Amino acid sequence: MPEKKTALVISAHAADFVWRCGGAIALHAEKGYEVTVLCLSFGERGESAKLWKEPGMTLERVKDARRAEAEKAAEALGVHALLCFDLGDYPLRLSDEEKFRVVDVIRNVQPAFMLSHSQFDPYNTDHMYATQIALETRMIAQAWGHHPGQKVLGAPQLYLFEPHQTEQMGWKPDTFLDITPVWEKKWAAIQCMEGQEHLWAYYRNVAENRANHFMRNSGGQSGGRKAKYAEGFQSFFPRTVDEL
Amino acid sequence: MPEKKTALVISAHAADFVWRCGGAIALHAEKGYEVTVLCLSFGERGESAKLWKEPGMTLERVKDARRAEAEKAAEALGVHALLCFDLGDYPLRLSDEEKFRVVDVIRNVQPAFMLSHSQFDPYNTDHMYATQIALETRMIAQAWGHHPGQKVLGAPQLYLFEPHQTEQMGWKPDTFLDITPVWEKKWAAIQCMEGQEHLWAYYRNVAENRANHFMRNSGGQSGGRKAKYAEGFQSFFPRTVDEL
Amino acid sequence: MPEKKTALVISAHAADFVWRCGGAIALHAEKGYEVTVLCLSFGERGESAKLWKEPGMTLERVKDARRAEAEKAAEALGVHALLCFDLGDYPLRLSDEEKFRVVDVIRNVQPAFMLSHSQFDPYNTDHMYATQIALETRMIAQAWGHHPGQKVLGAPQLYLFEPHQTEQMGWKPDTFLDITPVWEKKWAAIQCMEGQEHLWAYYRNVAENRANHFMRNSGGQSGGRKAKYAEGFQSFFPRTVDEL
Amino acid sequence: MPEKKTALVISAHAADFVWRCGGAIALHAEKGYEVTVLCLSFGERGESAKLWKEPGMTLERVKDARRAEAEKAAEALGVHALLCFDLGDYPLRLSDEEKFRVVDVIRNVQPAFMLSHSQFDPYNTDHMYATQIALETRMIAQAWGHHPGQKVLGAPQLYLFEPHQTEQMGWKPDTFLDITPVWEKKWAAIQCMEGQEHLWAYYRNVAENRANHFMRNSGGQSGGRKAKYAEGFQSFFPRTVDEL
Amino acid sequence: MPEKKTALVISAHAADFVWRCGGAIALHAEKGYEVTVLCLSFGERGESAKLWKEPGMTLERVKDARRAEAEKAAEALGVHALLCFDLGDYPLRLSDEEKFRVVDVIRNVQPAFMLSHSQFDPYNTDHMYATQIALETRMIAQAWGHHPGQKVLGAPQLYLFEPHQTEQMGWKPDTFLDITPVWEKKWAAIQCMEGQEHLWAYYRNVAENRANHFMRNSGGQSGGRKAKYAEGFQSFFPRTVDEL
Amino acid sequence: MPEKKTALVISAHAADFVWRCGGAIALHAEKGYEVTVLCLSFGERGESAKLWKEPGMTLERVKDARRAEAEKAAEALGVHALLCFDLGDYPLRLSDEEKFRVVDVIRNVQPAFMLSHSQFDPYNTDHMYATQIALETRMIAQAWGHHPGQKVLGAPQLYLFEPHQTEQMGWKPDTFLDITPVWEKKWAAIQCMEGQEHLWAYYRNVAENRANHFMRNSGGQSGGRKAKYAEGFQSFFPRTVDEL
Repeated sequence: MPEKKTALVISAHAADFVWRCGGAIALHAEKGYEVTVLCLSFGERGESAKLWKEPGMTLERVKDARRAEAEKAAEALGVHALLCFDLGDYPLRLSDEEKFRVVDVIRNVQPAFMLSHSQFDPYNTDHMYATQIALETRMIAQAWGHHPGQKVLGAPQLYLFEPHQTEQMGWKPDTFLDITPVWEKKWAAIQCMEGQEHLWAYYRNVAENRANHFMRNSGGQSGGRKAKYAEGFQSFFPRTVDEL
Repeated sequence: MPEKKTALVISAHAADFVWRCGGAIALHAEKGYEVTVLCLSFGERGESAKLWKEPGMTLERVKDARRAEAEKAAEALGVHALLCFDLGDYPLRLSDEEKFRVVDVIRNVQPAFMLSHSQFDPYNTDHMYATQIALETRMIAQAWGHHPGQKVLGAPQLYLFEPHQTEQMGWKPDTFLDITPVWEKKWAAIQCMEGQEHLWAYYRNVAENRANHFMRNSGGQSGGRKAKYAEGFQSFFPRTVDEL
Repeated sequence: MPEKKTALVISAHAADFVWRCGGAIALHAEKGYEVTVLCLSFGERGESAKLWKEPGMTLERVKDARRAEAEKAAEALGVHALLCFDLGDYPLRLSDEEKFRVVDVIRNVQPAFMLSHSQFDPYNTDHMYATQIALETRMIAQAWGHHPGQKVLGAPQLYLFEPHQTEQMGWKPDTFLDITPVWEKKWAAIQCMEGQEHLWAYYRNVAENRANHFMRNSGGQSGGRKAKYAEGFQSFFPRTVDEL
Repeated sequence: MPEKKTALVISAHAADFVWRCGGAIALHAEKGYEVTVLCLSFGERGESAKLWKEPGMTLERVKDARRAEAEKAAEALGVHALLCFDLGDYPLRLSDEEKFRVVDVIRNVQPAFMLSHSQFDPYNTDHMYATQIALETRMIAQAWGHHPGQKVLGAPQLYLFEPHQTEQMGWKPDTFLDITPVWEKKWAAIQCMEGQEHLWAYYRNVAENRANHFMRNSGGQSGGRKAKYAEGFQSFFPRTVDEL
Repeated sequence: MPEKKTALVISAHAADFVWRCGGAIALHAEKGYEVTVLCLSFGERGESAKLWKEPGMTLERVKDARRAEAEKAAEALGVHALLCFDLGDYPLRLSDEEKFRVVDVIRNVQPAFMLSHSQFDPYNTDHMYATQIALETRMIAQAWGHHPGQKVLGAPQLYLFEPHQTEQMGWKPDTFLDITPVWEKKWAAIQCMEGQEHLWAYYRNVAENRANHFMRNSGGQSGGRKAKYAEGFQSFFPRTVDEL
Repeated sequence: MPEKKTALVISAHAADFVWRCGGAIALHAEKGYEVTVLCLSFGERGESAKLWKEPGMTLERVKDARRAEAEKAAEALGVHALLCFDLGDYPLRLSDEEKFRVVDVIRNVQPAFMLSHSQFDPYNTDHMYATQIALETRMIAQAWGHHPGQKVLGAPQLYLFEPHQTEQMGWKPDTFLDITPVWEKKWAAIQCMEGQEHLWAYYRNVAENRANHFMRNSGGQSGGRKAKYAEGFQSFFPRTVDEL
C-alpha cells in the first residue's frame, strides 16, 4: 500500500486559503493528497466588513457565517479536514498551549509540505504573525523532546502563498503552479465567499496573470507550456534534489 | 528516439567549473545529459599565481597549462564539449561580436538549464561580469529577430553555482544536489587543478558540509536522506510545476 | 463648515516627538490641523540619564520632570492634545487592553496621517516596538468588528520620522518637509528638553542638513527652492494620486 | 501666461510606454502636459516574435511595423512628441554621442517628471540598461559645464513604471495613479499593439487590480475612493513638500 | 593594577557556544579575559535527539546530561563562569523578570564585547529570539533608571557568531578571528558534545575553511598571514577607532 | 627601519576627498602614513556650477581652478601625492589603458587601505562608477600575470567614505574615526573649495554629528569617549583580527 500523501495549510483567517492557495488544494486533492486546512481565526472582526454593516449583527453570527462559507469552500476544493481554532483576530495571538495544539495538528498530519502567509505584511499584522507561528510550531514539531514517543516531524517545505499587494509585502514567488485543471473548483470556492464579493474578479485576474508568468518561465514564445490559470508561491527553505 | 538532454556552464575562468559545479556536471553526464562547458578565459593572468612564480613563465605557457588542466578535468567529469574562448581575464570584457559567439553556443546547445557565477563578487569582478553576460546572451538567444530562422531559446533556468566566501557575495542557495554517486569523479577533476592545490581540501570540506545541509533540508534527524557530498545552487528564475 | 484636519504622533518616549517631528507638528498646527501626540511612556528609566545622576532621584520625580518638559514642548509646538499613557519603558510592553486604548485614540482622532518611529532600531528596541504597535493598532482601528458602531479608520499614511543614526536603522527618507516657517517654534520646543541638552545642537545640524537635501531634490542649483530647515520622513504605504 | 508643463518617458522598446504608463500619459495630456516619449529602439529583434514568424520578414519591415504601431498608440494617448532613436535592441547600447542626444532631449523638454523602467530586470537587460541611461543622462543634463549656456536641468522625479513580473524585478510601487478617466484611451492604444495581442487582457487585468490597490490605500472599506483602473509607479528620489 | 577584561556569550541552548565561538572564548581566556557564558536553556527538548532515542529517557536526565557536557566543554575552553538559566526551549520565552536576570548578568560582567546568535533563523526561532533578548537586555543595562545606583553598561559590541547554514540566515561575517593557537582546546570542547557527534567534523571543516577566508582577507597569495583555523563574526554596531 | 605605511584615495572628482575623508587623510598623515590621492577627473563639467556662472568661462579655466583648489586642499591635509588623471566627468569613463594606469598607482603605493565612494549613487553615476573602478583595479593589481615581476597587491581594505544624502545611497557606516585632533586641517582644506562654499557648513555639521555617533558607540553616557569631530566609513571587506 502506497504511503499517504498529505499537506497542511495554516491560515490566519477563514477565507485566506481560498484566494491564496485554493488551486493548490484542489490540484493536490485530485492527486490523492489529504489536504488539511487550519484556520486560526474566522477573521470575524477584521475581515467581515460586509456582515458588520448589516443591522443587529453579533460576533457569534459573524463567526457562524464565516464558518459556513469556509466549510462550503473547503468542500468545493476537496479539503480533507477543515480545522477552525477560533483564536480571535485583529489581533491574533497564541498562548503556548494554543501553539502546542498547532504542533499536534502538524505531527498528526505529517505534511509533505506546508502553506502559510508572506513573511511581512504591514497592512495585516495577523498574517505575518501566522507565518511566525508556522515556523515556530514546525520547529517544535521537529523536537524529539516534545511529547517524546510521538512521531517527530521531518523538514517539510513551507510555501508562502500570494498576499494582497505582493510588492508591499516583499513577497517574491519562485514557484508557479498550473491550476488550469482545477480552476472551476477554485472559482466555485471563491464564489462561496459571499461577504467579499469585491475580491472575486480580483483573484480571477491574479490567476490569469500568473498563468502568463507560468508560460514565460516554462519557455515563453518558444515552447512555453499553455496554462490558463496559475498560482505563485515563495519557498522558505532550499530544495533537495537528484537532478537540476 | 528520446529528445537529447543538454546543459551549459558559462565559466569566467578555466577552473571555476570544477570547484563550483563539477558534481552537477558529472551527475547529469551520467544521466545522459550532454554538458557543454564554456570557459570565457583561462584565468591566465589572475588565477594562476603558482605558475607565474615559476621562472621564465610566459602568458602562452600559462594558458597552455590552464587549458591542459581544464581538458583533463573535463574528461574526468564526462563533459560533452569544452569550449575555450580565450577572451582574456582581469579584466574579462566581451565585444558585441564575442557576445554573439556566446549566443551561438547557447542556441546550438539549447540547454535545459544553464550554470554560471554569483550575481555579485567584489573580490572578482570577472565573475559577476560573466553572470551579466549569461543573462544578456540568454536574452539575445530568445530574440526571434536575432539570426531569424535559427531555433530560438526557450526559458532555461540559470543556476548560480557556489562562489568562494558565499556570504560576501550575497549568494543564497535554494537547491542542494546530492553528488555522492559521482564524488570520485569530482575529486579526480579537482586533483587535475595542480596550480591551485591549496583549494583541494577546501572544496572537499564544502562538499561534505553541503551534504549536511542536504540532509537537514530533506528531513533532518527524522528521515533526512543520507548524503555524503552535495553542491548548492541559487536559482535565478521561478520554477513552473504541476505539483508542489 | 470645512472638515476638521487631524494628525497623530505615536511616540515611545516623551521627548521623541520634539526632535523627530516637532517641525511637522508646528507646521501642520499652523495649517489648522489638530495634532495629537501620544507618548506611550516618559522614557523615565532609559532616556533620563541626566536626571538620574542627581542625588535622591526617584521614578516619580523623573516622570514628573519628563511630563513637564513634554507639556512645555507640546505647547511651544501648538500640539492639540498631549496624551501620556505612562506604560513604562526599557522595555516598553503593551497588553491587549493597552493596545485597545491606543485604538480608541486612533479612532477618536481619525488622523489624516500618523507618525511613528523607524521600523528597525537595534540600539533601542522600544522604538521599533512602538512602530509595531502603530501598525497593529492601525489595523485594529480599521476592523468593522472592533467596537461595532464606532467610526472605523480609513487608511492614513504612516510616516516614520527620523531616528538617531539613520543608517544603522535602515531608515530611508522619501519625503522632505520644509519647516523653515516654524523653525523658531521647534527650536523653542527643543530647548524645553533640559535633560538632553547634549542633543540640541545635534538636531539643529540635522534640520539644517535636511534643508540642503530639500533643495537638492526640489531642483538643486537650477531652481531648488530655498529652505533653511527641513525634516525627513519615510512613508510606509503607497500614495494615491490624480497627478504625478 | 502659465508656464508649460512637460513630462518625458524614456522607453527601451517601442511598445513599453503603452503597457506601462499609457494611462499616465493620457491623463497628463488631458491636464495640459506636453508629454514626450523617447523610444530608444523599436524592439525589432527581441519583442516582435509574431512579426518574425511571418514569411519573408526583414529587419526594416519589422521596424516599420513597430514604428507605425507606436505612432498610432501615441496618437491615441495624446503624446506631444514621439521620438524614435532606432539604436538597436537585444542588446541596446548607447555611445557617448547617443547619450548626449538623450541629454539634448531632456534639456529641451525640461520635464517636470521622467518615467522609465525598473532598476532591475534579469529577463530583459535592455530594460535595466535604459534606466541606467535615464539616470546618467539626467545627471549630465544637470551639469553646468555640459554645453554651457544651455538651460540646465533641475531635479525632476524619475518614476519607474510597472515591469512585467514585478516581484522578479524587485519593483515596489509607492504611488498609485487613478487612470479611470482615460482608460478608454489606454485601451485604444493597447489595441494598436497588434503584434502583442497576447498581452492585451494581461494589462487590463493589471489596471483593474491596481485600482483595487488604489482604493485600499486611499481608505479601503471606510472611504477608499472608487477607481476602476490605475497604474503603479516607484519613485526614485525623495519628494519635497510643504504638507504631509 | 590593570583593569579586568571581560566578555559575555548569550547562547540559546547549551551547546551553541562551543560550535560557534569556542575558539573566541579560548583565545580571549588565554589573553586574560574573563569570559562568562550564559545558556538560556539546555536545548533539552529540541537539540538532544540522540538522548531522546535512548529508552526511558526523562527531561531531567536530558538536562543533566546536557549540563554535564556544557560544563566539561566550558572547562576545556577556559570559561570563567558558566551560567545555566534553564528557561526551557522549543520555544524559548523570557518573562520580564527573567530578562532582568539577564540584565543583572550583563551589568555584573560589564563585558568589553558580547556574543550571540544570528539575527534571523527560520529553522530555529529560539536562536533569533535569543539575539532579540541580547539587544533588549543590553539596552536595559544601559538605562540609568534601571536599578539606579548600579554601574550602567557602556556600549559593548555585539558580535553575531556563525549559525548553521549561514546563507539561509542572512548572516554575513565582517570579522575573521585566527583561532589556530587554541584549536586544540576548541576541538577538545567539541568532543565533549557526545550527543551531537554528527557535527564534529562539520565544524572542523568550518574552522578550516574560515582560515582560508582569513588568509584571503589578510593578503591572499601576496602576504596573507598563515592561519589553520578561524572563526567568523558579524558585528552589529559600528566600531570607533583612531586609525583605519 | 620601519616599513613605510601608505594609503590611497580614489576620488571621482577633485573635491570629493576633502569633504568625505579629509580628516582621515590628515590624521593618517600625522601618524606617518604617506597618503596618495588620485582624482580621476576635476569635476569640471558637473561639479563646478559656480565657476560656469562666471562670464567667458572655458573648460580649461575651470580645470585650472579646480586643480588649484585641490592642490591647496591637499597641502592643508598633508597629502603625500596628489594625482590628477583628468579623464573627464559627467560621465566619467575609463578605457582599459586608463584602468591599467590606476593599477600602476595602486601597485606603486601598495596601500594599507584604500578609500573610495559609496557603492550606489543614483544622483551621481560617476561616483558609483569610481567605486567599480576601485574594485576592478584592486583585483587586477592582485593578478600575478599582470606585469609579471612587479610586486603584486595584497588585500587592502576598501573603505567607502560618506556620500551626500547617505540614506539614498544605501551607505551604512561601520567605522567611526575620531578626527578631532586634525579638525583644523580639515576645516582649512574645506575652505579651499571656494567654488562650493554652500557645502562648508554642511560638512561641519556632518563632522559634529558623526562625533555624536562616535561617542554613542564608544560607550554613550557611560564612558563614551569625548570626540568633537568624526568621519564615518563603510568597510567593503571583512577584517582579520587576533582579538575581538
